[in-house]
Amino acid sequence: MSVITLTTDFGLEDQYVGSLHGVIVSLNPQARISDISHLIPSYDIAQASYVLGGSYFLFPKGSIHVVVVDPGVGSARKPILVQTENYFFIAPDNGVLSLALAREKIVRIIHLTNSDYFRSKLSHTFHGRDIFSPVAAHLSKGVSPDVFGPELTCVTRLDLYAHQVQSKKIRARIMAIDKFGNAVLYFHEDDFKEKMRKNSFVLKVGSHQIKKLNDAYWQVKKGDPILLFGSLGYLELATNQGSLAKKWKLKRGMVVELCL
Amino acid sequence: MSVITLTTDFGLEDQYVGSLHGVIVSLNPQARISDISHLIPSYDIAQASYVLGGSYFLFPKGSIHVVVVDPGVGSARKPILVQTENYFFIAPDNGVLSLALAREKIVRIIHLTNSDYFRSKLSHTFHGRDIFSPVAAHLSKGVSPDVFGPELTCVTRLDLYAHQVQSKKIRARIMAIDKFGNAVLYFHEDDFKEKMRKNSFVLKVGSHQIKKLNDAYWQVKKGDPILLFGSLGYLELATNQGSLAKKWKLKRGMVVELCL
Amino acid sequence: MSVITLTTDFGLEDQYVGSLHGVIVSLNPQARISDISHLIPSYDIAQASYVLGGSYFLFPKGSIHVVVVDPGVGSARKPILVQTENYFFIAPDNGVLSLALAREKIVRIIHLTNSDYFRSKLSHTFHGRDIFSPVAAHLSKGVSPDVFGPELTCVTRLDLYAHQVQSKKIRARIMAIDKFGNAVLYFHEDDFKEKMRKNSFVLKVGSHQIKKLNDAYWQVKKGDPILLFGSLGYLELATNQGSLAKKWKLKRGMVVELCL
Repeated sequence: MSVITLTTDFGLEDQYVGSLHGVIVSLNPQARISDISHLIPSYDIAQASYVLGGSYFLFPKGSIHVVVVDPGVGSARKPILVQTENYFFIAPDNGVLSLALAREKIVRIIHLTNSDYFRSKLSHTFHGRDIFSPVAAHLSKGVSPDVFGPELTCVTRLDLYAHQVQSKKIRARIMAIDKFGNAVLYFHEDDFKEKMRKNSFVLKVGSHQIKKLNDAYWQVKKGDPILLFGSLGYLELATNQGSLAKKWKLKRGMVVELCL
Repeated sequence: MSVITLTTDFGLEDQYVGSLHGVIVSLNPQARISDISHLIPSYDIAQASYVLGGSYFLFPKGSIHVVVVDPGVGSARKPILVQTENYFFIAPDNGVLSLALAREKIVRIIHLTNSDYFRSKLSHTFHGRDIFSPVAAHLSKGVSPDVFGPELTCVTRLDLYAHQVQSKKIRARIMAIDKFGNAVLYFHEDDFKEKMRKNSFVLKVGSHQIKKLNDAYWQVKKGDPILLFGSLGYLELATNQGSLAKKWKLKRGMVVELCL
Repeated sequence: MSVITLTTDFGLEDQYVGSLHGVIVSLNPQARISDISHLIPSYDIAQASYVLGGSYFLFPKGSIHVVVVDPGVGSARKPILVQTENYFFIAPDNGVLSLALAREKIVRIIHLTNSDYFRSKLSHTFHGRDIFSPVAAHLSKGVSPDVFGPELTCVTRLDLYAHQVQSKKIRARIMAIDKFGNAVLYFHEDDFKEKMRKNSFVLKVGSHQIKKLNDAYWQVKKGDPILLFGSLGYLELATNQGSLAKKWKLKRGMVVELCL
């Protein structure tokens, strides 16, 4: 039984999500569908990349990850299938796979052009229903990737969060504000945890700063700010049971500065 | 494996949706459940009809579509099962099936009265849990439709969007505003596309007008208005990557006028 | 095929829900997952207890109910498995199971300590992904409960809604405001229906009062207040097609007084 995951900006109030499910289950009644999120903000490629990047690797090898955040739907932007050593990704080639592909070894990239595997009547505005879902369903039934179209040599990657290093100051950005109001920062534990444990440091954002690293939310009093490495390994600014984003007016994309 | 779809105004924050799933899976562990939407605005029969109408036909033949938007729950309004050539529909008889049934050929309509197939303790306020879900589950297991109650000769149909024609002016209404802020108009491509391609036309809504027909959002600059036939074949007022509904203060039910 | 239900405060916009699904389906591809709700307000143990309590009993016997509303994640609060005569519950031991366990006969309580059944890399902030989901998946595959850790003798129960009785006045609280704006009161039909049918009574909340008991919303005019026993057997303050909570400014936790 293949798993097909869905990550879109379609919202949950319209017929869009049901349409994807209908198309997939009609073509492959055995497919198992997991909705990762349909509440990506409209057209927000970076957030889709983040949400997919934070969950795709937990699914079984061979899973098919469909991502439809597609501001250029109907234009010349390419619908693609990326096969990696562990997974398949189906999406518009607009950078939405950036974070996931940073951890995956690509086997091949296919430009989805073979309309035999699309819905017979193709719209200009809903390729989630007409291209991405049916291709995912056919793939889940064992159709070989190379049947869907010609190979491409590269895929769009967005470098959304690069560090700016200036002697002992490293600048990065807030990658995400989650549902709880926690701010996820582009400092990964693999690169920074040991240094921050061994040295004194200051993390600055706006007019606020924090100098201590903790492990878990409960270690500070309710409402107090806390800095810790979160569940994806990124540094996180949070409070114990409250929204630091609201309190400190943090937004995605804001610059944070780590002085080590 | 039967597919049962659910379209309701129950929201996602309470125990209501889980209750439907629990009842169905208890009666038929093999049933496959697809949630079309549970975010229909409370009591909004027209919106439920629209969302169901835009997705039901994508599911496999024989699928069972359950719709519970039921402002008259517990009153004399009839719970019904409508069997068409392709699908089954289970809903209160309040017009919620109008758009779907406009495209389907009805085989029979059953008044759901046989309480052997209801939950044993029947509430006055949650027939989604106590009548509609258990009947759907029994039907999915192969119980014959006529067992659920006597046949009816007609089903409630709401004519929500009729055209008003006055020489060369045709008035219709905005059927829906979707998650992206696109306005879907009751002008279908089967009736209007050729005419609009061949002749000059003006589409008016409020103080705004638009005279050009396009195909896809990317064809105009970001934020500019665009008119195109959308993924369900209806005329759509939109912008490239933004909410025209917000910009032009469009609401469902507003009158639009097409001068051909 | 085992059923695993999920009730969390993770929201639907991030990678959290997809993460639980990924972990479970990776460990047990046959598991059937039902999302009860992921829109429990952040850290709101009482609301999670209410939503679970209102739906868990509709699932097949043997179902595994996972509840992750976990303000103390990473602290000394215990992750537990509660086996009852009918179900399994997996949650932090913070009272989130209170309403469900009030109706269930407990067989045993296990402290989840055996890290062989956790994700290999354990975070301090996301035990939903790292402890609760993998334990549920292993349990659904037939692993015996006692393998997960030592037995405990008791589980945290919160007495959230106790009655205060003063001669003929009984005070209780609003347990929940649902999506429709109906207020659910802690007066159960088993204890109060007969009395309220037989005697005159007054129910007071704030400056409002109501003296009549009805059965179904349609029995009053649109917008009028109505009192009835709702689908879970609790007394409910509502209106016909509208939000009484908005109209009367009702909030969860407010005191209501029944004079019999």
